Amino acid sequence: MARVQPLSGFPEWTPQERLVEAHVIGTLREVFALHGFGEIETRVVEPVERLAGDSDASKEIYAIGRLNADPDADRKEAKLGLHFDLTVPFARYVEENQGRLQFPFRRYQIQKVWRGERPQEGRFREFYQADIDVVGRDTLPEHLEAEVAIVMARALRALPLPPARMHLNNRGLVEGFYRGVGIVDVAGALRSVDKLDKIGPDGVREELHGKGVNPEAVDAILELAAIQTPDGSFVDLVEALWDHSPIVEGADDAREQFDRGARSLAALVDAVNAAVPETAIADLRIARGLDYYTGAVYETVLEGHEDLGSICSGGRYDSLVAGGGFPGVGMSIGVSRLVSRMLGAGLATASRSVPQAVLVAVTDEEHRAASTAIADRLRTRGIPTEVSPNAAKFGKQIQYADRRGIPFVWFPAAGDGTSPDGEVKDIRSGEQTPADADAWVPPTEDLNPRIVRG
Amino acid sequence: MARVQPLSGFPEWTPQERLVEAHVIGTLREVFALHGFGEIETRVVEPVERLAGDSDASKEIYAIGRLNADPDADRKEAKLGLHFDLTVPFARYVEENQGRLQFPFRRYQIQKVWRGERPQEGRFREFYQADIDVVGRDTLPEHLEAEVAIVMARALRALPLPPARMHLNNRGLVEGFYRGVGIVDVAGALRSVDKLDKIGPDGVREELHGKGVNPEAVDAILELAAIQTPDGSFVDLVEALWDHSPIVEGADDAREQFDRGARSLAALVDAVNAAVPETAIADLRIARGLDYYTGAVYETVLEGHEDLGSICSGGRYDSLVAGGGFPGVGMSIGVSRLVSRMLGAGLATASRSVPQAVLVAVTDEEHRAASTAIADRLRTRGIPTEVSPNAAKFGKQIQYADRRGIPFVWFPAAGDGTSPDGEVKDIRSGEQTPADADAWVPPTEDLNPRIVRG
Repeated sequence: MARVQPLSGFPEWTPQERLVEAHVIGTLREVFALHGFGEIETRVVEPVERLAGDSDASKEIYAIGRLNADPDADRKEAKLGLHFDLTVPFARYVEENQGRLQFPFRRYQIQKVWRGERPQEGRFREFYQADIDVVGRDTLPEHLEAEVAIVMARALRALPLPPARMHLNNRGLVEGFYRGVGIVDVAGALRSVDKLDKIGPDGVREELHGKGVNPEAVDAILELAAIQTPDGSFVDLVEALWDHSPIVEGADDAREQFDRGARSLAALVDAVNAAVPETAIADLRIARGLDYYTGAVYETVLEGHEDLGSICSGGRYDSLVAGGGFPGVGMSIGVSRLVSRMLGAGLATASRSVPQAVLVAVTDEEHRAASTAIADRLRTRGIPTEVSPNAAKFGKQIQYADRRGIPFVWFPAAGDGTSPDGEVKDIRSGEQTPADADAWVPPTEDLNPRIVRG
Repeated sequence: MARVQPLSGFPEWTPQERLVEAHVIGTLREVFALHGFGEIETRVVEPVERLAGDSDASKEIYAIGRLNADPDADRKEAKLGLHFDLTVPFARYVEENQGRLQFPFRRYQIQKVWRGERPQEGRFREFYQADIDVVGRDTLPEHLEAEVAIVMARALRALPLPPARMHLNNRGLVEGFYRGVGIVDVAGALRSVDKLDKIGPDGVREELHGKGVNPEAVDAILELAAIQTPDGSFVDLVEALWDHSPIVEGADDAREQFDRGARSLAALVDAVNAAVPETAIADLRIARGLDYYTGAVYETVLEGHEDLGSICSGGRYDSLVAGGGFPGVGMSIGVSRLVSRMLGAGLATASRSVPQAVLVAVTDEEHRAASTAIADRLRTRGIPTEVSPNAAKFGKQIQYADRRGIPFVWFPAAGDGTSPDGEVKDIRSGEQTPADADAWVPPTEDLNPRIVRG
């Protein structure tokens, strides 16, 4: 048997670290439910042909197969792979269950996903994602683009994180502008602009030239991408840009799409900032690679942790499923990447490594039942409690609690005390007082492990 | 693209069904933490050579591989498979992190596992398991065998299930007896007795004869397996059985092991029944196939659902890891099988399909902000709320709430009402009253979806 060792890209946490991850997931669930999103979970596998639809991600698919395959039986079954995001399985779930779901369907989903990437610094092969989407049947009101962003902004604020800034854009605005300056392959141009952070304006310029876009149009595109305002004031800037850009003949339709997108983006930025102040920025650079999006697009950057890239992204799409008819809007948080940074940068820690607030000491093995009875009376009132595994000297039992961060040790009565249930000691202060197991409560902040901001 | 369809063995739930599953998992987490068990999660993959250690389960391993494999890079990496239980990964986790963990280490773990079985009625290929274990370093006190069973019995009682009966046995008792009647291959005999339910006493008799066990010893073994008492009274029965069984020469050592096991099992049954009345039964038939176990062994049957087999099993083992030195005791619940039965047999349902208690109606799109403001004031006080996606006629908006089981619809003030925040209607009773969005609360039972016993 090979020595055990961590697998690159498959993170695991200690029990104390897991408390932070569980807190993050629990907080997201609470905020999502508070805003009327219901939960689903999907199986982790999908037919490979369905997963492979997206060409970029298909390189990263993990296929699965039974180790002792039975060729006859297995040939009849579809080849399966692990999902690499929660959108592909959600689309399949909606298609499969459309007759049983109520639309607009508001769902959240927090599950692990897998990507068979080459392992490298900070890249996970297994990680949690948390998605929310609202999907309509045939139509979906535009105001839900703001709602989804607001829910995510509130979820991020509820976590032990520095401020998050949402960079918002609108595909219609961008597409209208691109068409206005005569670009035919709008999707191709968007993919180039999406690389601004990686290859810089000169790199993008070169790519666009290579794609046959004329220099004046490229300049206009890069000017558009440079516009960023914390409110609706970008509208004047983009309108002025249109007016002095090399607009092609017969661009009325493009102009209309551009104006509609600008109004929509201004309303979105205002609505998000009204609900969660100082969160949203209109950022005309945001492109999001996927062809999929048709309205609002979102990226989110964590102050002081810009190197993480976008921690929460998404957008508005015309249809969730290939056949059409299910317009929606959604965003996705990369939970494991966030948790990994929280732990690595000391942004959050759990106040102890175990759930229990109390260790009930055992005087000697003959009297173990007395300690167990006290523990059960505490548990009945919701106080997480452990009974000492052994009847070692009390000093040793205190040490046992101390090593795990258990704040209180309860000493059952030896028969000679003033309290029939004995005494409880706060092992941090050393203070020891007689206590009643049906009444004593630890201070609220000691009841359960707390998540402490770093 | 193939039509979407369910995959046999990969269960998925509707949002309303998922509420039941989430309730089960949440309840288990609470009970485990209340008893001082901390949570870990492990990656879902392990090296195949590690998974394949157990010959029986190895047939069911799902291996994973990158779809677009890079033979050069991939050759250097261990072949990976999805875990088929939570014991193998837990053992590896303990071995890997032994320097960072405190022993005895009390952990719970609730994760999906995968088994590439031939799909058949009620067999899942993907399902949740919930495990608790206490693992010592070198030693582990016997009283933890009772503690683990008590925690699991309480967890099952906290769920919307009929009474569960734990059938307990002790490997030492059985092994001592088998050795006493001259059986050399104790593990082989145990594997045969483990099939009692499937092949009956005659089938077991035939198997044991085939393994060379003499007829008198087989009779004695089957007599032992027939003993079942709801308390420690089995001790007299097994002692009497020993006395009239064909005991071999020089069985003093075996007798000692037998007696020690009997005392231990009697103490276990008493302790479990003292903590959770009418739960434990000494059942000398319980064998548990695995060689692994050395002390207490547990199986659990749900009253009226005996066809499910054991829903919660486990035992005491000498070492969690191959190298030795980590004695422990643990039990595992088959969560998905339980949830599937709860849903299928109508044992539990969620009181509604969505988390929100209130739908705030929208008078017209111009006044949407007023509805959103009311919703946010309710959310601030923890009341899950949705704002109507459209400003349809109020009748339509009430229908929207009704279809989802949302009990309350809030109508913002039209400016002419007595209450500045408008009125709230219980759409079940039709009762409508003026309300203050900073003070109104729904009845406690309507705040969140309730799990209703069937």
